[in-house]
Amino acid sequence: MALILLNCMGNEHNDYIKQQVHVKNPYLDTMEEDILYHFSLSTKTHNLPEMFGDIKFVCVGGSANRMKAFAQFMHHELKLPGLPEDIRDICEGTDRYCMYKVGPVLSISHGMGVPSISIMLHELIKLLHHAQCRDVVLFRLGTSGGIGLAPGTVVITDKAVDYSFRPQFEQVVLGKVITRSTELDEGVANELLQCSSELQNFPTVIGNTMCTHDFYEGQGRLDGALCSFSHEEKLEYLRKAYEAGVRNIEMESTVFAAMCRICGLKAAVVCVALLNRFDGDQITSPHDVLVEYQHRPQVLVSHFIKK
Amino acid sequence: MALILLNCMGNEHNDYIKQQVHVKNPYLDTMEEDILYHFSLSTKTHNLPEMFGDIKFVCVGGSANRMKAFAQFMHHELKLPGLPEDIRDICEGTDRYCMYKVGPVLSISHGMGVPSISIMLHELIKLLHHAQCRDVVLFRLGTSGGIGLAPGTVVITDKAVDYSFRPQFEQVVLGKVITRSTELDEGVANELLQCSSELQNFPTVIGNTMCTHDFYEGQGRLDGALCSFSHEEKLEYLRKAYEAGVRNIEMESTVFAAMCRICGLKAAVVCVALLNRFDGDQITSPHDVLVEYQHRPQVLVSHFIKK
Repeated sequence: MALILLNCMGNEHNDYIKQQVHVKNPYLDTMEEDILYHFSLSTKTHNLPEMFGDIKFVCVGGSANRMKAFAQFMHHELKLPGLPEDIRDICEGTDRYCMYKVGPVLSISHGMGVPSISIMLHELIKLLHHAQCRDVVLFRLGTSGGIGLAPGTVVITDKAVDYSFRPQFEQVVLGKVITRSTELDEGVANELLQCSSELQNFPTVIGNTMCTHDFYEGQGRLDGALCSFSHEEKLEYLRKAYEAGVRNIEMESTVFAAMCRICGLKAAVVCVALLNRFDGDQITSPHDVLVEYQHRPQVLVSHFIKK
Repeated sequence: MALILLNCMGNEHNDYIKQQVHVKNPYLDTMEEDILYHFSLSTKTHNLPEMFGDIKFVCVGGSANRMKAFAQFMHHELKLPGLPEDIRDICEGTDRYCMYKVGPVLSISHGMGVPSISIMLHELIKLLHHAQCRDVVLFRLGTSGGIGLAPGTVVITDKAVDYSFRPQFEQVVLGKVITRSTELDEGVANELLQCSSELQNFPTVIGNTMCTHDFYEGQGRLDGALCSFSHEEKLEYLRKAYEAGVRNIEMESTVFAAMCRICGLKAAVVCVALLNRFDGDQITSPHDVLVEYQHRPQVLVSHFIKK
């Protein structure tokens, strides 16, 4: 806390004050060893400050292939020495997540859904803490279903909201449900929007993002193994979401926002809409079109990082 | 329904009556094409009855590497022609899940957490339906934290329970929470226990399995990035769980049990306990010991399938 105050005083006009990563766990610093099990890393077997101390940007996304492609893309964009193809998966000892480091950028996959990204975030935040990282900004780059948007539109998340359009995340702690705020960093979101306006043909909006715990019933899809509602009821729910400012639906944003906020990390969510859910449920665009769409959040965040 | 009755009448002494996979979605059969997006399969581009019509056992687990190893192990155990190493990932068009077929056995990875396995289950159940499979038994093979058990003990799930030890799963449908039963097939569980007694040095129990939505706070771990409770409060929660019959904690069993039940699929959950949570939170066993533990559910289910 003293550090933050000091830096605030010294850099009044600097948006990105020197800020430590706050773990909120009094037990952590009493542990002789911390095994980051799902990364296959440990404070005893790895020199985390040396490996990760210079990290300034962490980009996370669901798919391992996509986060590898992003790392290679950033390697190229940052004009780093060596070949992008030679980038090594730091978590090769496990297949739970993959992790690539390119200069000050860490690219990590988190799988699908809140529980999967939550495990990754716990271990990532501990990693950044152990590595004594400062001023880190986190981005989630993802795919999503759009609401009232043309496929390919990029959504920068204003508020991450739950199935009732509330900006909160419910966490169970020892059998009790507690509620956490999912507010994201407004400054980073606005800067990302500014970046998008500097790119050619880059349809981008700021809007609320609804985070659900499944892809079918929770998102009102008519094409799952289970469906107990009508087409009209589905549209009614999506219309209500639209009226509440929701522009896309994905499956990780609330816990991402909540955990980053608690731990003093600036964070943003940037997802491309693969389809307009008012028009259908299935993702029918050709493979090459989807690949180009999925690249868009990467292009936007890369532009932000380079600036 | 007629089919089930007919078969019941014809096979009164057969535990495994000829039973179709029930999708509970009236819209599904009206669709011209069904794209199983996260499998990279479709009813138009793939002949699902030809590819999967003979499937009798589906085994699912979190890790892609482990489910590949299981497929190769089953290939060897079933003495199938060809080399186990040549088994091809049917879902190679995507990195969301991997899928291997060895004779009548399908081995699929589902990632971590309820949302991730839920997407896989929706698409798996549709796949089994489209492929006109009959008499399918599903197994989840996993790892877990044990409660009051020696590391390496295999737990066959009696009831899958939530964070309050209730045998139910809460599903959000169009913004409303509905509750589903998580009862599993008692016959399959007892047969698995019988199988375990036929194997050497194979510590196995039947007990309740608690399914949480994260690995740290929800499971009472003191070693996450966030921890707001004391060591004593943690132990108190685990003791209550033990008293409610819970013998292990994992992150997928409730939705697995609920969806299989609704769709008329016999199902069982078999997880090995990697540690005793009364003794600690971190998984500290050496790599080779963990590998041997993780193989145990595979050995047990393989023994069941061979019988």
